[in-house]
Amino acid sequence: MEKLGLLYEGKAKRIFGTERDGVLLVEYKDSATAFNGEKKSEITGKGQLNNEISSLIFASLKESGIDSHFIEKISAYEQLVQQVSIIPLEVVTRNIVAGSLSKRLGIKEGTPLKHPIVEFYYKNDDLGDPLITEDHVEVLEIASPQELTLLKQKAIKINEVLSNLFSKLGIHLVDFKLEFGKDSNGEILLADEISPDTCRLWDKKTNQKLDKDVFRRDLGDLTTVYQEILNRLRGETTHV
Amino acid sequence: MEKLGLLYEGKAKRIFGTERDGVLLVEYKDSATAFNGEKKSEITGKGQLNNEISSLIFASLKESGIDSHFIEKISAYEQLVQQVSIIPLEVVTRNIVAGSLSKRLGIKEGTPLKHPIVEFYYKNDDLGDPLITEDHVEVLEIASPQELTLLKQKAIKINEVLSNLFSKLGIHLVDFKLEFGKDSNGEILLADEISPDTCRLWDKKTNQKLDKDVFRRDLGDLTTVYQEILNRLRGETTHV
Ligand SMILES: Nc1ncnc2c1ncn2[C@@H]1O[C@H](COP(=O)(O)OP(=O)(O)O)[C@@H](O)[C@H]1O
Ligand SMILES: Nc1ncnc2c1ncn2[C@@H]1O[C@H](COP(=O)(O)OP(=O)(O)O)[C@@H](O)[C@H]1O
Ligand SMILES: [Mg+2]
Ligand SMILES: [Mg+2]
Repeated sequence: MEKLGLLYEGKAKRIFGTERDGVLLVEYKDSATAFNGEKKSEITGKGQLNNEISSLIFASLKESGIDSHFIEKISAYEQLVQQVSIIPLEVVTRNIVAGSLSKRLGIKEGTPLKHPIVEFYYKNDDLGDPLITEDHVEVLEIASPQELTLLKQKAIKINEVLSNLFSKLGIHLVDFKLEFGKDSNGEILLADEISPDTCRLWDKKTNQKLDKDVFRRDLGDLTTVYQEILNRLRGETTHV
Repeated sequence: MEKLGLLYEGKAKRIFGTERDGVLLVEYKDSATAFNGEKKSEITGKGQLNNEISSLIFASLKESGIDSHFIEKISAYEQLVQQVSIIPLEVVTRNIVAGSLSKRLGIKEGTPLKHPIVEFYYKNDDLGDPLITEDHVEVLEIASPQELTLLKQKAIKINEVLSNLFSKLGIHLVDFKLEFGKDSNGEILLADEISPDTCRLWDKKTNQKLDKDVFRRDLGDLTTVYQEILNRLRGETTHV
């Protein structure tokens, strides 16, 4: 598979064209960023860890009948994906109050929600990825009400599968961010990445944070906890 | 009607008990505040203007079959209202993009919306009155989904009546904030105030701002434009 020109460089990944029509190469970077890029670090090995974790998670979703853009991991830092036209929404699903929700509502981090909730953020760095309502999505002409309903259904279904997966690994899936895109037929497909960069993952026994909050809040070494997630996903550790 | 003890002092009004059970006295203050109280001024005559404007608007809504807490204006600065238990939501209805919506979505102020939209803000000064979703309202246990539906229906209906009223006065009703409360029977009732403090009002011909943005953005003399609104409401000016 030949790696063609760089199409887009984001905060965490580089996107390249390939010789296969409609297939992109995603290269995971060793950059960690937080607070809309205000905090930034190079962390050797992070790209490799997230490439592998994301690949394992997309493969696992596939086994549960959930399609995504993921085709295959082709090297330590690279995976092939189906090209989509990204819907500029960060679709956030939450099981436990944390982060911005805790600040917004004044509810203590760690408070379980009675039901999972789905939020939409407008994926727009200039505006700081603001929370928006379903009416705002319509005003922005980002998605139709029917498409929003579909996005919510998909998010809730993925939450069930991932919560289950992580639960078996001794981990609470606190919240996570998804991105979706439209393929050439206009079908909505799960895209982007699913990794400790985009999920909050708390060890069930110790409540230790095993995700990007370690970087955001200077709680320890990022690669150590991402490696721990990878190990558990690989089934290389024992945990009850 | 005897004025009993001060029950609550807010940014714009003081609430007193009265000898009549379930009846409160609202005294409109001469204070102007913006940006969650960060900007503040005493403006002589403002309380009187808002007391009169709010009274006229509640009376006009009543004529259109929309009940509110308003009982009667009893002096220049005072009106009697029915006591309710305030639902801590700012229910904002918008017809034209302005203010925080323009900033949030990156849409130019003045852009008309295809349909009016209703937003909920959590009325909580400590948290800065954040925008919240309907799921958040449920998480906070502020209102049931059925009550939210009712609040939206009421807001849309009030928007129709008020848009019409202001339109006849040569004014665009750009957006406005409502508060609702529950009476002793648990019925949801329109409360608080409706004034240039809580509405964006633009002159149709000149686009001149005739509302609190004059104070927020230092665009001129507040009492002059509030007086203009009052004059038009009183039918004392001619305008085509
Ligand atoms: N299958 C795909 N097709 C096209 N673009 C994609 C696909 N998956 C992810 N992307 C986009 O690739 C870009 C690079 O990712 P990332 O570095 O995370 O960017 P960002 O800094 O915008 O978060 C993002 O804009 C993301 O939405
Ligand atoms: N009918 C009512 N019964 C009880 N409280 C009311 C009623 N109408 C308005 N209020 C409340 O009176 C308080 C005083 O108003 P205001 O000065 O605008 O306060 P704030 O600074 O909280 O906006 C507000 O908390 C408002 O919600
Ligand atoms: Mg990203
Ligand atoms: Mg108020």
